[in-house]
Amino acid sequence: MSEQERVRASFDRQGLMAHLGARLGHVGPGVVHILLPARPEVTQQHGYFHAGATSAIADSAGGYAAYTLFPEGTSVLTVEFKINLLAPAVGEHLEAVGTVLKPGRTLTVCRLDVFAVQGEQRTLVAAGQQTLIQVAARPER
Amino acid sequence: MSEQERVRASFDRQGLMAHLGARLGHVGPGVVHILLPARPEVTQQHGYFHAGATSAIADSAGGYAAYTLFPEGTSVLTVEFKINLLAPAVGEHLEAVGTVLKPGRTLTVCRLDVFAVQGEQRTLVAAGQQTLIQVAARPER
Amino acid sequence: MSEQERVRASFDRQGLMAHLGARLGHVGPGVVHILLPARPEVTQQHGYFHAGATSAIADSAGGYAAYTLFPEGTSVLTVEFKINLLAPAVGEHLEAVGTVLKPGRTLTVCRLDVFAVQGEQRTLVAAGQQTLIQVAARPER
Amino acid sequence: MSEQERVRASFDRQGLMAHLGARLGHVGPGVVHILLPARPEVTQQHGYFHAGATSAIADSAGGYAAYTLFPEGTSVLTVEFKINLLAPAVGEHLEAVGTVLKPGRTLTVCRLDVFAVQGEQRTLVAAGQQTLIQVAARPER
Repeated sequence: MSEQERVRASFDRQGLMAHLGARLGHVGPGVVHILLPARPEVTQQHGYFHAGATSAIADSAGGYAAYTLFPEGTSVLTVEFKINLLAPAVGEHLEAVGTVLKPGRTLTVCRLDVFAVQGEQRTLVAAGQQTLIQVAARPER
Repeated sequence: MSEQERVRASFDRQGLMAHLGARLGHVGPGVVHILLPARPEVTQQHGYFHAGATSAIADSAGGYAAYTLFPEGTSVLTVEFKINLLAPAVGEHLEAVGTVLKPGRTLTVCRLDVFAVQGEQRTLVAAGQQTLIQVAARPER
Repeated sequence: MSEQERVRASFDRQGLMAHLGARLGHVGPGVVHILLPARPEVTQQHGYFHAGATSAIADSAGGYAAYTLFPEGTSVLTVEFKINLLAPAVGEHLEAVGTVLKPGRTLTVCRLDVFAVQGEQRTLVAAGQQTLIQVAARPER
Repeated sequence: MSEQERVRASFDRQGLMAHLGARLGHVGPGVVHILLPARPEVTQQHGYFHAGATSAIADSAGGYAAYTLFPEGTSVLTVEFKINLLAPAVGEHLEAVGTVLKPGRTLTVCRLDVFAVQGEQRTLVAAGQQTLIQVAARPER
């Protein structure tokens, strides 16, 4: 499988991403985008995206960005992440971008950026940093 | 309104928490618990809770813990948080505990702890730290 | 060597700790204290401890707390840490406490607490969380 | 005073930076560099820079980067920072770069990057993110 196929196959098995309505965008070596359209299930009473939804897609984007650089037969786990919520997350959809900052055999570090997109406008609404660990893959049922 | 009533009223307006199936547990001054039962929508292919779901309830628990100490007419926003995922999050439900570590007029800092509960067993699966800011409340529609 | 002796031997080789005037306090399994007396070299123009000094002893306290639980022939490296500066750090000395929250074969997670001590008074001035990795020790010259 | 003069005047009053042997590099609107030459006082037994020294100059670089955008009569405090140590910090000197990611009236968020410089070679050895708060300046004695 190509890195694209591996990422898409894994993404499709993630109950949470489907449940939030998130979908994969660009997938390249060391960089993955995840899109989340606005709807009441992921927003607050003022129509802003919930910080938990913003963080969830940021965490997944970073995890898959790392995963694109891992060899077959391995899997990825989030060790930790830190995220700053910079501005109200309001728009038609969010776009989370995970980018590998430092790849490694055991640990990989990613930058996380989340943009709110409204028409032509693209606003940075969250930024963070994440540590991931490469582990042996478990056989899928 | 008592702090309990204010927290419950706000929680009930949060689309994301309802959508995940989370519910409020204990609410006291400076401490709030949020419970998340296991179901495919918040777990991965192996039955573990998704890191994004774990983080989302941790962030909300900390936000409400801070909010219990805020005066009426104010609201709370997450400035940033950092969370370590310590162990596979597997069990009947997760219990996120937000505890105010340092209250302040502008900024409040909380500890975040998430436990996986299976029968009598309670395992710490995530721990973090969060900064929140007190802002003027917007009128609700 | 006992864990105490290993920690003290390593601490004594650290140029930075000596240069700052820091000294080891309590050393137990999974917990290490480091003390830093106030003097102009580690403070600012207002007599507060510099955030960089506060962080440096917090990072070292956590690193050594993890190290107490590691087997002989291994060493410890900081993967990352996050620290909140909660209150002006002013007093006769600082006391940083590193405590293992979750030990592991590869990664260990610690809590970091820093207190400012003035006579009988002990104020929490910083709190954080840290991830450490166990590596094979290099031969000392 | 220009932003450059304000930053240099403040830097010169910081006991810790002088004590470590750090000096200001480039100072521009929203970006500040701090250099730290290698010497035994800031390194470990293997000649690597100590994580505490790396973090201290990163924290200061970010703090001054924010400060360049603040109005006169104000001062800056670090609320919190998170830093990943990506590679052994070894070289002739370290160069910490603080860059404002999101300025604000109350809170400012910075990226922190630290490079180890050896001849022509420049290696990213640490990366982080920091939250700062603008406060009223205290009169200097």
